Amino acid sequence: MSDAALPKASSPAAGRPRPFPIAATIATSDSGGGAGIQADLKTFAAHGVYGVSVLVACTAQNTVGVRAIEPLAVSFVRAQVEALADDLVPRAVKTGMLLTAEHTETVAECLRRFDFGPLVVDPVMIAKSGDRLLAEDAVTTLRGALLPLALVVTPNWPEAAVLAGQPVRDEREAEAAGRRILRFGPRFVVVKGGHSPGPPTDLVVHASGVVRVPGARIASSATHGTGCTFSAAIVARLARGDDPIEAIAAAKLYVSRAIAAAPGLGRGHGPLQHFPPDWEVWRPTPGAPGGPG
Amino acid sequence: MSDAALPKASSPAAGRPRPFPIAATIATSDSGGGAGIQADLKTFAAHGVYGVSVLVACTAQNTVGVRAIEPLAVSFVRAQVEALADDLVPRAVKTGMLLTAEHTETVAECLRRFDFGPLVVDPVMIAKSGDRLLAEDAVTTLRGALLPLALVVTPNWPEAAVLAGQPVRDEREAEAAGRRILRFGPRFVVVKGGHSPGPPTDLVVHASGVVRVPGARIASSATHGTGCTFSAAIVARLARGDDPIEAIAAAKLYVSRAIAAAPGLGRGHGPLQHFPPDWEVWRPTPGAPGGPG
Repeated sequence: MSDAALPKASSPAAGRPRPFPIAATIATSDSGGGAGIQADLKTFAAHGVYGVSVLVACTAQNTVGVRAIEPLAVSFVRAQVEALADDLVPRAVKTGMLLTAEHTETVAECLRRFDFGPLVVDPVMIAKSGDRLLAEDAVTTLRGALLPLALVVTPNWPEAAVLAGQPVRDEREAEAAGRRILRFGPRFVVVKGGHSPGPPTDLVVHASGVVRVPGARIASSATHGTGCTFSAAIVARLARGDDPIEAIAAAKLYVSRAIAAAPGLGRGHGPLQHFPPDWEVWRPTPGAPGGPG
Repeated sequence: MSDAALPKASSPAAGRPRPFPIAATIATSDSGGGAGIQADLKTFAAHGVYGVSVLVACTAQNTVGVRAIEPLAVSFVRAQVEALADDLVPRAVKTGMLLTAEHTETVAECLRRFDFGPLVVDPVMIAKSGDRLLAEDAVTTLRGALLPLALVVTPNWPEAAVLAGQPVRDEREAEAAGRRILRFGPRFVVVKGGHSPGPPTDLVVHASGVVRVPGARIASSATHGTGCTFSAAIVARLARGDDPIEAIAAAKLYVSRAIAAAPGLGRGHGPLQHFPPDWEVWRPTPGAPGGPG
């Protein structure tokens, strides 16, 4: 049976009221609460959307490093996705750390089968602590199976270099890598500028050009989970109905505020403050754009 | 080596500033986001405390039922606790669904070894959907190993009956069961009144009496994760330095508001709205009670 013949789980029934926006994360648990599904759920909550999650693995982790990783069975990953598809269909979805090629392929297969709305792929490869989080052969699967389904992919410079298969040492090379990654299928490649020696400008590379999203470098060791938080904030905004480039720019600003307000926890790369001062939790208004019907 | 000889991980160093409050949940993942660590983390976030989590198992679940459960290895449960003890020590902690006697014993052993602050035990036994969530022999372990460590335990009527080993069919029997459970070691037994045919009054049974916390019955099917949310709200308030009875009363009010504002998701027992309208996220103020030093 071809994918096209499969019913799409979230085809909107004409005239039915829009439900409360749901955002999903398919990723890994961080016991330390700063990254993974924990950061994603905190970010979704801060943006006023209802968060659901599909775990592919669990880590024993803190701000210093990853101490243990427990992969979950791919049949169980599938069961979690099916439980959502039957009852709590997301309006937008992200993937984070997917660990192995088999898990990555399973997630891609699930996302071909069910329509969970626009997909943001955070191509997590290495933790801030330096621990490797994605098997080498999984990169090929991520590129070949997941990127064709993505609306947005959010590599930093090292990840862009791996995905594109070419070096990224300056902004010109970052843009070139972004263009190359675009060919694998996503509509927007956000090459994050955090590793740039200059200002951390993000490049949003798309079919008709490049949008530069400037940012100010914040001197902080609170950078645990910034990538997770950024991609989750994009997903939350997409679930609310935002335009992708607006969602990306707003997500970058949110991460800056969350870093600036970091609670100063842990001895390593500390977590963010997902509810920074003066941050207003968005409230869905029935009938309004993004809100329930 | 006796437990008493082990260093307590969070012994406050005199004169050192108090860190930002951290609350921990030791429980199970609910992919549907309405119960388990997901509800706990949302509740912690709504109360402005930093949430961390220790997973003992994962479920594939939605508002209709539990489709699959994956227990995690107890060595991995221990690794997650140790990662927190070394770097992100909680000021208060709760336990939720612990699945088996072996997991329950492991969690009790970890909580004897490390001082994670006051412990709230939510003696989860059966999901709202009717699915059994705690093995029968685990009840004995919960009673004998975990309750002696608890400040607060939060059974509903059926759970109080199982823990006390005597029937609970009315408020008088609920109070008697509460008194019996008190003998196993907790300082406060909150026998929740949700199963009462009358008003859902919670009974806070303690050594010197009973405090009645009244509540209004809300006609709603959005009751998935109410027990998790209630115990998590108590923990969040304890982490901020609240008095236990104040924390319990405030948690009950929070749950009522979260039920009343439920987003109407799912076909079964729907989830709560953890950020109800006009709810203000608490902001820790440096130097103020509960805030960082």
